[in-house]
Amino acid sequence: MKQFTSVNDVENIDKLLQKALEIKANPFAQQEVGKNKTIGLIFFNPSLRTRLSSLKAAYNLGANVWVLNAGADSWTLEMQDGTVMNGDSQEHITEAIQVMSAYCDVLGVRTFPKLQNRDEDYQEVMFNKVKNLSSVPVVSLESATLHPLQSFADLITIAEKINYNPTEKLTKKVKVVMTWAPHPRRLPQAVPNSFAQWFTKVDWVDFTIVQPKGYELDEQFTQGATIAYNQEEALKDADFVYAKNWSSYEQYGEIIPQEKDWQITMEKMKLTNNGKFMHCLPVRRNVVVADEVLDSDVSIVIDEATNRIFSAQAVFHEILKGLK
Amino acid sequence: MKQFTSVNDVENIDKLLQKALEIKANPFAQQEVGKNKTIGLIFFNPSLRTRLSSLKAAYNLGANVWVLNAGADSWTLEMQDGTVMNGDSQEHITEAIQVMSAYCDVLGVRTFPKLQNRDEDYQEVMFNKVKNLSSVPVVSLESATLHPLQSFADLITIAEKINYNPTEKLTKKVKVVMTWAPHPRRLPQAVPNSFAQWFTKVDWVDFTIVQPKGYELDEQFTQGATIAYNQEEALKDADFVYAKNWSSYEQYGEIIPQEKDWQITMEKMKLTNNGKFMHCLPVRRNVVVADEVLDSDVSIVIDEATNRIFSAQAVFHEILKGLK
Amino acid sequence: MKQFTSVNDVENIDKLLQKALEIKANPFAQQEVGKNKTIGLIFFNPSLRTRLSSLKAAYNLGANVWVLNAGADSWTLEMQDGTVMNGDSQEHITEAIQVMSAYCDVLGVRTFPKLQNRDEDYQEVMFNKVKNLSSVPVVSLESATLHPLQSFADLITIAEKINYNPTEKLTKKVKVVMTWAPHPRRLPQAVPNSFAQWFTKVDWVDFTIVQPKGYELDEQFTQGATIAYNQEEALKDADFVYAKNWSSYEQYGEIIPQEKDWQITMEKMKLTNNGKFMHCLPVRRNVVVADEVLDSDVSIVIDEATNRIFSAQAVFHEILKGLK
Repeated sequence: MKQFTSVNDVENIDKLLQKALEIKANPFAQQEVGKNKTIGLIFFNPSLRTRLSSLKAAYNLGANVWVLNAGADSWTLEMQDGTVMNGDSQEHITEAIQVMSAYCDVLGVRTFPKLQNRDEDYQEVMFNKVKNLSSVPVVSLESATLHPLQSFADLITIAEKINYNPTEKLTKKVKVVMTWAPHPRRLPQAVPNSFAQWFTKVDWVDFTIVQPKGYELDEQFTQGATIAYNQEEALKDADFVYAKNWSSYEQYGEIIPQEKDWQITMEKMKLTNNGKFMHCLPVRRNVVVADEVLDSDVSIVIDEATNRIFSAQAVFHEILKGLK
Repeated sequence: MKQFTSVNDVENIDKLLQKALEIKANPFAQQEVGKNKTIGLIFFNPSLRTRLSSLKAAYNLGANVWVLNAGADSWTLEMQDGTVMNGDSQEHITEAIQVMSAYCDVLGVRTFPKLQNRDEDYQEVMFNKVKNLSSVPVVSLESATLHPLQSFADLITIAEKINYNPTEKLTKKVKVVMTWAPHPRRLPQAVPNSFAQWFTKVDWVDFTIVQPKGYELDEQFTQGATIAYNQEEALKDADFVYAKNWSSYEQYGEIIPQEKDWQITMEKMKLTNNGKFMHCLPVRRNVVVADEVLDSDVSIVIDEATNRIFSAQAVFHEILKGLK
Repeated sequence: MKQFTSVNDVENIDKLLQKALEIKANPFAQQEVGKNKTIGLIFFNPSLRTRLSSLKAAYNLGANVWVLNAGADSWTLEMQDGTVMNGDSQEHITEAIQVMSAYCDVLGVRTFPKLQNRDEDYQEVMFNKVKNLSSVPVVSLESATLHPLQSFADLITIAEKINYNPTEKLTKKVKVVMTWAPHPRRLPQAVPNSFAQWFTKVDWVDFTIVQPKGYELDEQFTQGATIAYNQEEALKDADFVYAKNWSSYEQYGEIIPQEKDWQITMEKMKLTNNGKFMHCLPVRRNVVVADEVLDSDVSIVIDEATNRIFSAQAVFHEILKGLK
């Protein structure tokens, strides 16, 4: 693997999934690959799961790792090309990324969308700048529009729960429903875009996205998914319910008020096929999902978070083993 | 050892003390125990000694370690159960702790009291939440009411200074006096509570607490100690003087103005039996203790700080060796 | 090596240079020296290159490393001796440094000048306090007046570019010109002082400093350099152009307005002997140097930054191998 910026960098999803499950079963067996290698992690935004799971993944691989909170730990970065830097910015991203990539073998980067200019966000201006400037392979720790390590961890979690065996054909597809849910703030579309981009590519999954009118995601990520607008209808027979808020793609970055309450409750979970509740975390309790769901064994959110270690470890492993 | 939240988690103080002294003599000899283990450290408050000594202890054991400054590095945490999270808090502690403990084998946590509601602080609401939610053993890096790694480091320091030999009965008990000292701010009772809780359990120590009226500590920690109110009297014949400020337990969290100056001076040290001066640090110079004491060889505060490595290392060692 | 606070701590520059080149060729070959050793890094100011290159250097040596952002991660430090600490400062530097040095084998420290009182800055009050209080060898990660790890990395870079061979006498000296350049802020003199202090000691270098009147550096560092005031003249035949802004030493910490534009452009680079452009970074684009220079292969600023790993690694190596 040369980089990991979306599912499109994965040659064979099924093989990567098996690799992750193999690594989880035996997490310290690949330390020859990590030896004397350094993974650099740059956060332009706060992080808990991504930061700690990436550290754990690096440790499991016997690799070294450093973390930089861009801004807090270092200088203010200038993002625009061609500017006369006589203002507040102390370093241009051109130098910053070239330098940071000189200090590691793999560079993990988290950027966020500004949710102001859709084109700018969807062109991944910032993330692509980093990718193009880096002298070493880049791993997305979430970008403006995608969060592939999360989606991969979600896939690992579903595979575990159904005891997925790649050599055995499933008699019936697994029904996965991603449902929009409420939230007080304007959130990025990175997690749902990425989830859609992955799960439309998994042939043993029957994938539905349900959301209020006006919350349709960018079609480039949802091709192949069933698009629905009635939450109760969509939840019927679901094996996995993936709840997530996102702001509107159409009215970019906006919150469109809803009359209906889209919060996931136990009553709604009863419509499913003994379905499991999933969320990428952090989750707003009693806004996105009721305590009764999260505190029951219907919830597998901690499994997802735990599998963030192994999605990162599998990706780092595949990239590191390709380096001299 | 299954956890380390107070001296009550220590089966045999003397054995743990010997373990720490053995580790100090040979700090890199236990790396099989730390191999492929990860120690997570969460700070809800700033820290210097605890942070760095815990890192050094982990390194000495050959363990991996990560540090999270809760708040600064990650999300704002919601502490209350049952709330509708449509405000500022982005993640509930329930998920945060379950997730963080999924990324390590031992979880060290520092929490502080708010000094507003005594019951809340003394029930260790926050620390117990962490302890109950964690899927791995928890180590206190100081909680609202206790700081056991500090007290253990203090014990190691005293044992070193008297060349303590567990197989040889001391002819005379060692006199340890903990004295209240002034401070401009309202401080927790964690250090003195914990010191009292440890030293009332050491059978070769004659333990006195001296403080102004109104500064009596919670009796659950001081049973067995001599309680005094006259500082000069109490210091007589002391082998070790442990100075520390704390706010009132009775008038909870308050500072009760004193006419007398309780600062430790060289004149007061002369009342002792060539006693050594101890303090957990950080210390307010010329408020808690005079420069002349701190800058003389009467002071053993740096020894105490150094032994923070070995108290942490002994505790991590005992916990890690109990894990599969 | 007992410490590394300036070039004066280097017994033989040429030997250290060869050591660094040898380490760069084989960066993981010295891990016996770093085993079970811990390098502590304290930053009183933000840092990108120094932080990450020091981490990488430590990792390459197989050493452990911790980083403390003084202030943010820990307590507010009191710097004055003899004060009654009843104000905001929570810990005196006397205890802080003694304690921090107890938790490592080598202590790297970054301090900055305040640019208010020249004597205070040039006496390196803060840095010397740290040096004198530390119980372990101290490495400057930049002090008020010097930045020796940067200058050493610059020397490594020049040596690489000319394929320097210590056993072969150069037929002609290498012409290195350090030129003042504009900047919107009042900057320290540490980098240019240090560069001058190193390059006046390298016998195969012909070293010129060019600056506007009023920007002359402290003569203690520039003895032996050619001092010039006409930038175009000075750049003639230069093999290396080292651009850097600094505030006035004479009118201490001030910016003296210039009519001429001292920015380095491609037109100016054409005056040189196919000279390479150098800068320590971070650099203000189109203020200190034009994009056209920085984005051409005339620029070797990323090489300099990369060599920060090996200047640090060589220094840590020399110090660590001297420890028991």
